[in-house]
Amino acid sequence: MSPRPRPPATARASNAEHTAMPHLVILYTPNLEARTDMTALCRTLADVMLEQRDEDGRQVFPTGGTRVLAFPAAHFAVADGRDDYAFVYLNLRMGTGRSDAVKRKAGDDLLAAVRAHFAPIFDRQLMGCTLQIDESPGQVYDGKHSNLHPLFNKG
Amino acid sequence: MSPRPRPPATARASNAEHTAMPHLVILYTPNLEARTDMTALCRTLADVMLEQRDEDGRQVFPTGGTRVLAFPAAHFAVADGRDDYAFVYLNLRMGTGRSDAVKRKAGDDLLAAVRAHFAPIFDRQLMGCTLQIDESPGQVYDGKHSNLHPLFNKG
Amino acid sequence: MSPRPRPPATARASNAEHTAMPHLVILYTPNLEARTDMTALCRTLADVMLEQRDEDGRQVFPTGGTRVLAFPAAHFAVADGRDDYAFVYLNLRMGTGRSDAVKRKAGDDLLAAVRAHFAPIFDRQLMGCTLQIDESPGQVYDGKHSNLHPLFNKG
Repeated sequence: MSPRPRPPATARASNAEHTAMPHLVILYTPNLEARTDMTALCRTLADVMLEQRDEDGRQVFPTGGTRVLAFPAAHFAVADGRDDYAFVYLNLRMGTGRSDAVKRKAGDDLLAAVRAHFAPIFDRQLMGCTLQIDESPGQVYDGKHSNLHPLFNKG
Repeated sequence: MSPRPRPPATARASNAEHTAMPHLVILYTPNLEARTDMTALCRTLADVMLEQRDEDGRQVFPTGGTRVLAFPAAHFAVADGRDDYAFVYLNLRMGTGRSDAVKRKAGDDLLAAVRAHFAPIFDRQLMGCTLQIDESPGQVYDGKHSNLHPLFNKG
Repeated sequence: MSPRPRPPATARASNAEHTAMPHLVILYTPNLEARTDMTALCRTLADVMLEQRDEDGRQVFPTGGTRVLAFPAAHFAVADGRDDYAFVYLNLRMGTGRSDAVKRKAGDDLLAAVRAHFAPIFDRQLMGCTLQIDESPGQVYDGKHSNLHPLFNKG
């Protein structure tokens, strides 16, 4: 599928990667499907994640571990159901170990991008967007198998 | 899409709304799709949420923040796979700050509605339903952008 | 749907079942759909869960409570988006009360099965797989309605 030379896969991530391994899951009502470009939103939000830097100027989220997945519901109910309400829920799960400032900025930047994305329809579409960041709650195991990390980590 | 006049959007919810912001996500095996009306279940469960009252008679879940989203799996395996088993997983995520009694009653009422919904097929369909409520575990950021809350909160 | 005689449904699980109630949710990029058999992966992983035994030789995950559900995203972005990257996220949610060794072995065995499943395409598909196990974080309610457990628990 890809012409790139492939570095050896890592069976287990380093500690540094463990702390930051992020993914953003978007769940939304299907009435938005024809009204907005969700693939574009995924790319925009991935780019916002890739642009995050910590207090020392280092990339917060590793490139090979950044991913955004969006799922339209097949069935839904929002509020009192008396209008064509829409809802977008965004959940970013990241490892522990980041400062409050880094987490706050990531959240603010992502939410700003969500607001900008939906601005063209926000004045004619009743909708709610909620973004929450979870710091890997209750996690007792974390393993990975990837040929993406080494691709981006190579010198 | 909607003829209703629109109040100004809120960029950040009040504390009161923060504590209760609920959403219910339903994940289910696709063998149920043709056997039951999942849109009806979503509406029923949203209504159950809207009817919840706390010890002081106040609505537990704000109308504009109540939403139910249902997703059929594309692929699945249940138990030993020797029969046409079905499974429905319901997860209600709500903010912290509610009493144990309120949470228990919300769970019991939702589970009762799930049981009633599936009663017509429960004696001929091998199936399991699990309902869990999580109190926003590990949450480190919570932001929203909505024109729904002000719609329902206006005098 | 099923010819099997049906035992009476349980409205609430026993404590023993509560501790282990597992489900595994797989979220993945849709570019994998035509390249691998996700239904086969679901079955394989369910079997790995069913084979788990604790220090006393007892089945870790009850048969009637074991389920795997897989959902392809409708939209996605991975890493820098410059190639046809794929991503598979696997999350096993289980109740509390298992030993660290049991949780570690379950994770290792599941990850090994994931690696084996994707081995045929791993050298030509840029992809990342992440498996995380959560111990029911923040859970404040847990109810069930099922005719599966008694089916498998009967003498």
